Amino acid sequence: MSHNTIGHLFRVTTWGESHGPALGCVVDGCPPGLALDEVFIQGFLDKRRPGTSRFVTQRQEADLVKILSGVFEDDRTLSEFGGQVTTGTPISLMIENTDQRSKDYREIRDSYRPGHADFAYDQKYGVRDYRGGGRSSARETAARVAAGAVARRVLGDGIVIRGAVIQIGPHMIDPEAWDWDETQNNPFWCPDKAMAPTWEAFLDETRKAGSSAGAIVQVEASGVPAGWGAPVYGKLDSELAGAMMGINAAKGVEIGAGFAAAAMSGEENADEMRSGNDGPTFLANNNGGVAGGISTGQDVVVRVAIKPTSSILNEVRSITRDGEEVDVRTIGRHDPCVGIRAVPVAEAMLACVLADAKLRHRGQTGR
Amino acid sequence: MSHNTIGHLFRVTTWGESHGPALGCVVDGCPPGLALDEVFIQGFLDKRRPGTSRFVTQRQEADLVKILSGVFEDDRTLSEFGGQVTTGTPISLMIENTDQRSKDYREIRDSYRPGHADFAYDQKYGVRDYRGGGRSSARETAARVAAGAVARRVLGDGIVIRGAVIQIGPHMIDPEAWDWDETQNNPFWCPDKAMAPTWEAFLDETRKAGSSAGAIVQVEASGVPAGWGAPVYGKLDSELAGAMMGINAAKGVEIGAGFAAAAMSGEENADEMRSGNDGPTFLANNNGGVAGGISTGQDVVVRVAIKPTSSILNEVRSITRDGEEVDVRTIGRHDPCVGIRAVPVAEAMLACVLADAKLRHRGQTGR
Amino acid sequence: MSHNTIGHLFRVTTWGESHGPALGCVVDGCPPGLALDEVFIQGFLDKRRPGTSRFVTQRQEADLVKILSGVFEDDRTLSEFGGQVTTGTPISLMIENTDQRSKDYREIRDSYRPGHADFAYDQKYGVRDYRGGGRSSARETAARVAAGAVARRVLGDGIVIRGAVIQIGPHMIDPEAWDWDETQNNPFWCPDKAMAPTWEAFLDETRKAGSSAGAIVQVEASGVPAGWGAPVYGKLDSELAGAMMGINAAKGVEIGAGFAAAAMSGEENADEMRSGNDGPTFLANNNGGVAGGISTGQDVVVRVAIKPTSSILNEVRSITRDGEEVDVRTIGRHDPCVGIRAVPVAEAMLACVLADAKLRHRGQTGR
Amino acid sequence: MSHNTIGHLFRVTTWGESHGPALGCVVDGCPPGLALDEVFIQGFLDKRRPGTSRFVTQRQEADLVKILSGVFEDDRTLSEFGGQVTTGTPISLMIENTDQRSKDYREIRDSYRPGHADFAYDQKYGVRDYRGGGRSSARETAARVAAGAVARRVLGDGIVIRGAVIQIGPHMIDPEAWDWDETQNNPFWCPDKAMAPTWEAFLDETRKAGSSAGAIVQVEASGVPAGWGAPVYGKLDSELAGAMMGINAAKGVEIGAGFAAAAMSGEENADEMRSGNDGPTFLANNNGGVAGGISTGQDVVVRVAIKPTSSILNEVRSITRDGEEVDVRTIGRHDPCVGIRAVPVAEAMLACVLADAKLRHRGQTGR
Repeated sequence: MSHNTIGHLFRVTTWGESHGPALGCVVDGCPPGLALDEVFIQGFLDKRRPGTSRFVTQRQEADLVKILSGVFEDDRTLSEFGGQVTTGTPISLMIENTDQRSKDYREIRDSYRPGHADFAYDQKYGVRDYRGGGRSSARETAARVAAGAVARRVLGDGIVIRGAVIQIGPHMIDPEAWDWDETQNNPFWCPDKAMAPTWEAFLDETRKAGSSAGAIVQVEASGVPAGWGAPVYGKLDSELAGAMMGINAAKGVEIGAGFAAAAMSGEENADEMRSGNDGPTFLANNNGGVAGGISTGQDVVVRVAIKPTSSILNEVRSITRDGEEVDVRTIGRHDPCVGIRAVPVAEAMLACVLADAKLRHRGQTGR
Repeated sequence: MSHNTIGHLFRVTTWGESHGPALGCVVDGCPPGLALDEVFIQGFLDKRRPGTSRFVTQRQEADLVKILSGVFEDDRTLSEFGGQVTTGTPISLMIENTDQRSKDYREIRDSYRPGHADFAYDQKYGVRDYRGGGRSSARETAARVAAGAVARRVLGDGIVIRGAVIQIGPHMIDPEAWDWDETQNNPFWCPDKAMAPTWEAFLDETRKAGSSAGAIVQVEASGVPAGWGAPVYGKLDSELAGAMMGINAAKGVEIGAGFAAAAMSGEENADEMRSGNDGPTFLANNNGGVAGGISTGQDVVVRVAIKPTSSILNEVRSITRDGEEVDVRTIGRHDPCVGIRAVPVAEAMLACVLADAKLRHRGQTGR
Repeated sequence: MSHNTIGHLFRVTTWGESHGPALGCVVDGCPPGLALDEVFIQGFLDKRRPGTSRFVTQRQEADLVKILSGVFEDDRTLSEFGGQVTTGTPISLMIENTDQRSKDYREIRDSYRPGHADFAYDQKYGVRDYRGGGRSSARETAARVAAGAVARRVLGDGIVIRGAVIQIGPHMIDPEAWDWDETQNNPFWCPDKAMAPTWEAFLDETRKAGSSAGAIVQVEASGVPAGWGAPVYGKLDSELAGAMMGINAAKGVEIGAGFAAAAMSGEENADEMRSGNDGPTFLANNNGGVAGGISTGQDVVVRVAIKPTSSILNEVRSITRDGEEVDVRTIGRHDPCVGIRAVPVAEAMLACVLADAKLRHRGQTGR
Repeated sequence: MSHNTIGHLFRVTTWGESHGPALGCVVDGCPPGLALDEVFIQGFLDKRRPGTSRFVTQRQEADLVKILSGVFEDDRTLSEFGGQVTTGTPISLMIENTDQRSKDYREIRDSYRPGHADFAYDQKYGVRDYRGGGRSSARETAARVAAGAVARRVLGDGIVIRGAVIQIGPHMIDPEAWDWDETQNNPFWCPDKAMAPTWEAFLDETRKAGSSAGAIVQVEASGVPAGWGAPVYGKLDSELAGAMMGINAAKGVEIGAGFAAAAMSGEENADEMRSGNDGPTFLANNNGGVAGGISTGQDVVVRVAIKPTSSILNEVRSITRDGEEVDVRTIGRHDPCVGIRAVPVAEAMLACVLADAKLRHRGQTGR
């Protein structure tokens, strides 16, 4: 990880501001010969697109992705799908910004919105594209989602990545009621059928109150073979933690049992093993699929805490650039619970980290 | 972060196995002219040294550090302390292993200890130094603590890094009772005077029962100026999360309010600002000192969940390298609660990440 | 350097194929507050633009650059020029391809052009965008030149970067006749007034003969302060050599006296020093401005050998993708001497390496 | 490449000063299961050891290497040689300094030796280990040679790396007389039997005159498969140029025809291809085994220009640290022609770059 780049062999560099002409990313190190077209990537972008329900920002962006390089349709080297394939060279992806409404933000140009990056950016850079948060806007995550689509091609169909919201505000789902199919039946990626109406009522109330709500997102990858990752600083869980904490508004990351492991005894926490028909089996997954920084073959399970959206209608006390005290309210179009749209982003980060781990593992061990 | 290296401008590469001849690290990119000698580094190593109380491993290691390169005592360029200073070239630090008792581990050579890296390493590498966990042993953290001492010289005396244990097993301290001085009065780095006896009784019981306990560690840095960090993938909190999750047995990381932020409203979570005599002040620190990935000038606050030590006397079910089912108990000398000795390690990681952020910020902005 | 990225703190990642929709780069790590607009960058691109004389490719590309991110015009934070400035976030630059004529290349789709990357790419990737050389085309260097313009802003006006061609085919200039102003008076960047007509005649003949010619380019930077660079693998000359050898068709790099140093005695080669009015002065510059990998304050002098353009009208023996023997002639529009257009590219590489060295030096030493 | 680290997946970080207690390196990313012991590495170190003839420094160093980590002898996982193997974790190699004679250098403590890094280091760091050149001493290359031994294990026996000196002072060998076996019959790695006596006489004279001589080294790798390397900034020739220019006293690098290519026509320079019994064959190797930055399967051929040793007995004009003018002569024990001992170093660099390219290629393409 280095400023705006993530990954070592599968490297993603994102660029772009919320209200600039476009945003995008360059994916370098993608293996050649993988089927990749705009339709495939667009499917992932549509999952995080604004304006899809009243619980996410009403900004209307088509978020149409263009592939500018790194793919080619050669009648001699067709993909399994008969279309264009990656060539092994950098893949440049661009999404044009079409609905910026920059003047919405003019009035908060000089004031620091609490919880936002405004103050920190000014302290660091001395200059700041204040329109919609500029570089610190969650719009940047569209580029990550696009990169995550490429990562999925690297991982192949044998690895399935899924995500859900498991808590909004104080309301946590019942893990026993988990049903992945349910995540498709409500606008919250909620896997607990009984919880969805509670969240709906809670968020309607939150929105009417001019406030916002936090959330916890859980993403999982199944089908990851044992052996990916590396000791000490290139640990798979270390890379995952770094990637997830880099998501806008993320304040916590845990793997497997996570913070709950602190209260367990050694016996409770041990993922005991037995011999199964298809190799080793584990009797629990407190490790979240990673031991010693290396995948074990179990499902990789990661949770991310997302703070409530900092942009709220209600006034909060702050200061201006010049140090004068003001009350700030943010009247732009914002997600009442940014955690919902964080699901496809966290899935994309998981895909990118795993794709990089796969290539590095293959590089070092030949397997 | 890259396999066994952390940092970009201030780069730490560690090496060594638990029962090899030595372990150590190379610190590259350290600024020149900083006072640095073995006595200074040794002070930090002594904080994590084994054998200091009955609550940590009884392995007896002096953990004496040697500086093999990167410092020089020049009568023309004395440090403020009159001794040797860093020269800007790589600093090689070595700690010899003196009390390995390798035969303790011979009997678990072929069995996978649940919760340990044994299985994952074998799956990845096909060969494994099984003695004491080899590379995956917590002994590796001695090298990190040594590097953290160098990082503190980079940060200077204006930045104070401190750590504490705030939960052992199910017993969490009372945050209202926090007293940093208390962390020096008990063998647990416990900041809550009333809690220390509870932990003592709990850990004695845990040890007698042949079991182990998890913990939560909190580390803080005060004096960090606003502006360190970078957008998107080089975020300060992203780097911290990656570094902390790389600590042995870490399963969760949170910054500021962390997972609790998920249950807050936007107003509760906002760190409101006012104008103080010495510049901006914040009325809360839910952000943990980082906004948009960049430091705000508030205290940087990080918590790490440490799972219970996987090496326990009690039998747990597992398999051998050849797939046969066995019951495993680990009779070596281990920490009943590895979270205690994780405090100086987490402090060191915080120091290393901040030192790197300082140099990168200075490089990009000249400040 | 890493696949398609160069630099550590000032990082340039390029992307794009010769005949795709566009090419470009992302410049990450650029300091904030530097005046930067498209007009400034365009000036450098115009220096390498195709179609400017009969000695370079007749492809007609406007090579218009667009800045897609990383700059902002804030009425509160104007640049010295009153316009937009860099914000410290990634600068995305894009150049659309407008004159591709892809069908020109269809006939060499299946044949390997000797001296080109065709065979090697197929061996590596199994698939290849054969149109105009795809990723291996010299068109990629437009993105480098654009990045070099940004690098110049980082370096500031005190550092002057200039380039010249000193040899075309067997005809080398007379170093005694060197006049930088002359490089503006001929289409060859030739600093030796007497040599330009010789080259003109030679290249006309070469072109008529359906052949091509090699060249040697020299680039220099004056005003570089002493102290930039780093020991061993981050040496300034090491970085320069890597960057220059990465230019299309480059086969050799030398610093200062270069290969001629091999024939010198220690006394001849020594850059003796004296005390001048403004600090140390050197009586020679055989080191080319770098000693021990670190700049000395002398002019940085680098020469690059560029092989003759591999695309020639004359037939050369080769094989097809399927191993059949064929004779290949390349009838597209090509530079008879690609070394001429390598001048602004080598200047850009010099600027990028120095900009990165400046930021890293500042990061490590605070100066 | 980053300060004191070279490589991406196969990463070598060196440390150590000429007159410190030891020097060494950490090799990270080495694949597991490769036979590696001290005897194997020592063989390479013995090739560059000082004191082996009157044409190299008379410093007497045993240069005994110790492996401190990263290997293990497991009776279950024996290497083909029955001994210890690499484990995939960092390999730490250390060479103790035994014959420093530091007082030799005390008198030049305050004077800058022309051609040396003394002045540049002082300008950069403000402090400098002046004893024997400290970090800038050619002694550092012992660590590279040790790392190069590990790299050879990564490459396997199918890739043969060899080196020779082809020019000393003004005396260049006759390429037609090249005989690799001859390099073992003289103390110069001279492949031209007739040239060795000329060099012997020339260097005896040089030494008696208190002077020194430059040289050109050529290293080659045969057996490299087509496809290693990457476009643009990770080009194989770019990495080679960077690595070779990082060798002490190197001032030029060329690949294949190198600077001579500048004088060739396109037809002369083209490496024409035909179909052979075992696949494609090339009728020439002007490309030096690399096209478009990717290996072609031909021999990789690299030449490095080494300037004359800067440490000479004869007086040269210089200044002191305080700016006073002085005459400097260096009376330590030095190589009259440091190019001779650069041969095993250049071989090691070639091995390291290829090992890294192999792992990266395998990672990206699975081949």
